[in-house]
Amino acid sequence: MAAAEGPSFWLGNETLKVPVALFALNRRRLCERLRQNKDVQKNSIVLLQGGEETQRYCTDTGILFRQESYFHWTFGVTEAGCFGAVDVDTGRSMLFVPQLPESYAVWMGKFNVNNKILHPEIAECRVIKTDMELEVLRYTNKISSEAHKEVMKAVKVGMKEYELESLFQHYCYARGGMRHTSYTCICGSGENSSVLHYGHAGAPNDKTIEDGDLCLFDMGGEYYCYSSDITCTFPANGKFTADQRAIYEAVLKASRAVMAAIKPGVAWPDMHRLADRVHLEELTRIGILQGSVDDMVKVHLGAVFMPHGLGHLLGIDVHDVGGYPEGVERAEEPGLCSLRTARRLQPGMVLTVEPGIYFIQPLLEQALHDPARACFINRDVLQRFRAFGGVRIEDDVVVTATGVELLTCVPRTVQEIEAFMAEGQGSAKSFGCLSSQKQ
Amino acid sequence: MAAAEGPSFWLGNETLKVPVALFALNRRRLCERLRQNKDVQKNSIVLLQGGEETQRYCTDTGILFRQESYFHWTFGVTEAGCFGAVDVDTGRSMLFVPQLPESYAVWMGKFNVNNKILHPEIAECRVIKTDMELEVLRYTNKISSEAHKEVMKAVKVGMKEYELESLFQHYCYARGGMRHTSYTCICGSGENSSVLHYGHAGAPNDKTIEDGDLCLFDMGGEYYCYSSDITCTFPANGKFTADQRAIYEAVLKASRAVMAAIKPGVAWPDMHRLADRVHLEELTRIGILQGSVDDMVKVHLGAVFMPHGLGHLLGIDVHDVGGYPEGVERAEEPGLCSLRTARRLQPGMVLTVEPGIYFIQPLLEQALHDPARACFINRDVLQRFRAFGGVRIEDDVVVTATGVELLTCVPRTVQEIEAFMAEGQGSAKSFGCLSSQKQ
Repeated sequence: MAAAEGPSFWLGNETLKVPVALFALNRRRLCERLRQNKDVQKNSIVLLQGGEETQRYCTDTGILFRQESYFHWTFGVTEAGCFGAVDVDTGRSMLFVPQLPESYAVWMGKFNVNNKILHPEIAECRVIKTDMELEVLRYTNKISSEAHKEVMKAVKVGMKEYELESLFQHYCYARGGMRHTSYTCICGSGENSSVLHYGHAGAPNDKTIEDGDLCLFDMGGEYYCYSSDITCTFPANGKFTADQRAIYEAVLKASRAVMAAIKPGVAWPDMHRLADRVHLEELTRIGILQGSVDDMVKVHLGAVFMPHGLGHLLGIDVHDVGGYPEGVERAEEPGLCSLRTARRLQPGMVLTVEPGIYFIQPLLEQALHDPARACFINRDVLQRFRAFGGVRIEDDVVVTATGVELLTCVPRTVQEIEAFMAEGQGSAKSFGCLSSQKQ
Repeated sequence: MAAAEGPSFWLGNETLKVPVALFALNRRRLCERLRQNKDVQKNSIVLLQGGEETQRYCTDTGILFRQESYFHWTFGVTEAGCFGAVDVDTGRSMLFVPQLPESYAVWMGKFNVNNKILHPEIAECRVIKTDMELEVLRYTNKISSEAHKEVMKAVKVGMKEYELESLFQHYCYARGGMRHTSYTCICGSGENSSVLHYGHAGAPNDKTIEDGDLCLFDMGGEYYCYSSDITCTFPANGKFTADQRAIYEAVLKASRAVMAAIKPGVAWPDMHRLADRVHLEELTRIGILQGSVDDMVKVHLGAVFMPHGLGHLLGIDVHDVGGYPEGVERAEEPGLCSLRTARRLQPGMVLTVEPGIYFIQPLLEQALHDPARACFINRDVLQRFRAFGGVRIEDDVVVTATGVELLTCVPRTVQEIEAFMAEGQGSAKSFGCLSSQKQ
């Protein structure tokens, strides 16, 4: 590491060096914003409290510490129990670490405290990523993409879903220095691929993967508190059936249509509507739906198949802050109401693009019992897809001045996936999959 | 799974099937104890609240749920947000799951609540393990021992400590179904082996392992909320130096002396004293100490080299409950004051036996500045060990009617370790270590 680079966070090997200048720039941007805010008085100080160590219930077993996100964005400190202050006028910052005698913190009660101004301003700063932050997000996506590919090569019928979760985590940590994942891994196979929040403690990725299953694996690693959020959907046995291929390609078409349309000024809800429309057109082509797509849109038929939002802001938090600042209202329509942001896009925003088509029993039943929607559904064809599960394709993108930069790099077309998995079957032994011992 | 076995918790493959009868027996034992307690009135009900889902700070990123330990011991339920009740007279139990309408829980405020009696009684039940519980602890030790062996085979000079942490976790999860570890992995190499709480977020196992380093790896997997706690110390390059061997064998001698002495009726502080005495004798033989061991004991010289307790109760919590029930007092002497239990041993107790010798600078400085202790220390010989780090050997044992059952199974003697690691160098590729790709 050349001295000219300045101090950095680094976990060695091929992991990313993150300059601590990243956080100095964040603080500078925050101070600039605050100085332009007429409610901020002269001689103001920003005071932030870092995260604290926590224990499992009333035991002395510590839970692995992860810094609070605003504090991380501002100071980049990995230790627990700190306070940090920034002088808005001068930009000078101070860090109070817990080893200091208590007397150093006594001043904290003496000032006129305003705890309303800071939150929206710092959230707004976090929405637009700096180049240094983008470098870290490129890295989290690179490693997580590689880890997804490891998993695709290692998957075999008969394995437990959690074996692949474990392999993903191992790759991210051993190779990428990612001790945390950005969220609990969702590793659904077969019908579980339509369970949106699969993988939690009550449904802990413990199904055996069967021949003919689609795998929907939604997993992202976190480096130095910066996240990633990637979903790959692929057939466990390496070959799509005709129906799997049809649904997969419908979702991929929506994904690519959205990416082609993203640019500064575009309203995110319109991107959701675009994905919905492509889904409806494709489901009509497949024969599950029938009739006028315009009429389907009027009754929000898209939300039956994609009940979640198209995507969300991504950064230090996987569902990053700033999605609904003052003046941006949440829509009430099905589907759109689940969007975590309704903003117009700006360069430097990072978002997930994650269209999906799922066959979720209660939602299908509701639609079939609602004459306004049931009239579009071909029950005979739908019947074939009742146990299908679902497909989601999730990429992370940066909004640029002219369009989009795709951060995620995994096999995406049917051809790419099938070719990659065929290749993988031969070479899985060279990777970190314990399963190779079972043969 | 034969029907005769009854329902069980199982994660497939070669993971352990745990009969839910384990928890029925726990409840029965608890009710029997409570019925013998004169403060428990007729028609009493035990009411326990299970753990709740938590989030990272004020985000919607969920933290992977792990059940609260008392609730787990009583009900074995993996889901969050439950309440459970047990009728003490009849033993009948009820589980309130969060999907139930709220009206089901309305009765909770109507009763005469006593929240003093239960805690010591249930803690006491947890101290003595049933055969079914021992089966689970045998399993957690088996898998964690195997994972430690994987790590010993995979270790290479130049790797980062966290790569081995990652491999340990991967083995435990992919092979053993252990999604959690029992505690944050401590993977100290070189001087870090004397940092007792190494591995936390502020010192996250991120040193490069160097030639000549000792590795002190303290790691344990958790299955269905039952823990394990194992430390292996070994040379990174596979061969002990003469000094490393001398200190290692001193600690091993203490470990084996304690295991030979453990039996019902023995007071745990006496086991700590025994380990201390063996350490002092061996440090004298090595030449670091000089003079009468009896006199060294009087000034608590052992605590300079082993400042922690010899071991602790182990169960659903890694530092399990019940160490100091009413009537058992904590000692005040150095070393002994750190013991997490001072009880007399009983069959069915599970404990760690974890003697260690460390060269910790501040403790050595204190001792060298204290004439009462400095007189025993040979400064010239000590100098050679200043950057040594430390050795800990940690096994998990069950107290039996006549002695001890050793649950941990890893190479322990110098000969075993060197032979195992030599073997490992050739075969590391067959295991799940990503490092094999680097060559």
